[in-house]
Amino acid sequence: MSTIEERLRQLGLNLSQAKPAVGNYIGSKPMGEFLFASGRVSDLIGEVGTEVSEDQAKEAARNTVLVILAIVKQDIIDLDLLAGVFKVTGFIRSSPGFTRQPNVVDGASDLLIEIFGENGRHARTATGVAQLPFGASVQLDIIFQLKHKP
Amino acid sequence: MSTIEERLRQLGLNLSQAKPAVGNYIGSKPMGEFLFASGRVSDLIGEVGTEVSEDQAKEAARNTVLVILAIVKQDIIDLDLLAGVFKVTGFIRSSPGFTRQPNVVDGASDLLIEIFGENGRHARTATGVAQLPFGASVQLDIIFQLKHKP
Amino acid sequence: MSTIEERLRQLGLNLSQAKPAVGNYIGSKPMGEFLFASGRVSDLIGEVGTEVSEDQAKEAARNTVLVILAIVKQDIIDLDLLAGVFKVTGFIRSSPGFTRQPNVVDGASDLLIEIFGENGRHARTATGVAQLPFGASVQLDIIFQLKHKP
Repeated sequence: MSTIEERLRQLGLNLSQAKPAVGNYIGSKPMGEFLFASGRVSDLIGEVGTEVSEDQAKEAARNTVLVILAIVKQDIIDLDLLAGVFKVTGFIRSSPGFTRQPNVVDGASDLLIEIFGENGRHARTATGVAQLPFGASVQLDIIFQLKHKP
Repeated sequence: MSTIEERLRQLGLNLSQAKPAVGNYIGSKPMGEFLFASGRVSDLIGEVGTEVSEDQAKEAARNTVLVILAIVKQDIIDLDLLAGVFKVTGFIRSSPGFTRQPNVVDGASDLLIEIFGENGRHARTATGVAQLPFGASVQLDIIFQLKHKP
Repeated sequence: MSTIEERLRQLGLNLSQAKPAVGNYIGSKPMGEFLFASGRVSDLIGEVGTEVSEDQAKEAARNTVLVILAIVKQDIIDLDLLAGVFKVTGFIRSSPGFTRQPNVVDGASDLLIEIFGENGRHARTATGVAQLPFGASVQLDIIFQLKHKP
């Protein structure tokens, strides 16, 4: 078991069963020390601020990290090839008056730092969109850091 | 004629006349093996799900790839300097109930794979926005792969 | 004083007091010649096209560049380590009928070119979103170029 998966186990978390892409794209694409993970949406459905609460959305953001890690594992096999996180973009399906997108995306950021430690700290953009695939509440787009190949 | 343009010809496609940027930005910017192309919008105007159909938007996404390739060709002259595609972000101007953004962006992804083969497969994020420049239906933001310089 | 700060002084501009991140993220993250700055919102609040005007939003985009540079300075200390700009993504909180996002983001692009000269020219995407953190009018996400380390 990789160190990262052991860390997840200690946090009481399991990688979700990786879900196949719904569309003609791949789970992630590497380039040098960059790994671009495809954006994935939360299982949680509904507009944040009306249909679902801020706390529900924050938890959904946390869970979506696991969805993405499961897909990345399918692609790179050994999650310990990940060294950290460069950038997170969070798209939050926001009701007209909902302006606390950063707090929702903290659900993802907190977990990434729990998993990767200081290297999990990242640049981030949290924005509010009108609609998301399948009506999801949260969508995350993550650029991971891959370890140098020796 | 470059191999990529020959491939387009075989697909029955022509590069659109490259349109000048409407704003103070450039068509694309290279860095190492990355080429960041500026986001471009479709000629198709209208909100997807109400004013224009999903199928129309999907075809517009396909056509927008040609708009972007024409601009990239202006910048790098020889399209065969492109090795593939790292990342596509699709912003779809969505009606409140439209949640099939991934199917619309497939119009672009399918064509990129037809043109570049396996190296055209890419990480992707498809999201739904309230409005786009000029009222367009689709906006694409593509990070291409440039060939290693020998 | 760095050359870039001297240039700002000549333009009659001051770096805003850097504001701490509101959320669990860092101001910027470097990788090779890339510096990913976290997305930051304007001090200007309100929907563009109804609550605030296009011109106000354009000026707010310009000012948001200073907010981001102040944060980047906190991180890298010497702004002369910046060589230029690769990519700007502008999210504009748009009223249903507002479609001139590119003109708003030009407020940021113009200033980046005034500061960095030709190397400040960048690839760009300007899109329209339903809502932004704190109800802001403008959000900018910038990828800067770092100078080669000798």
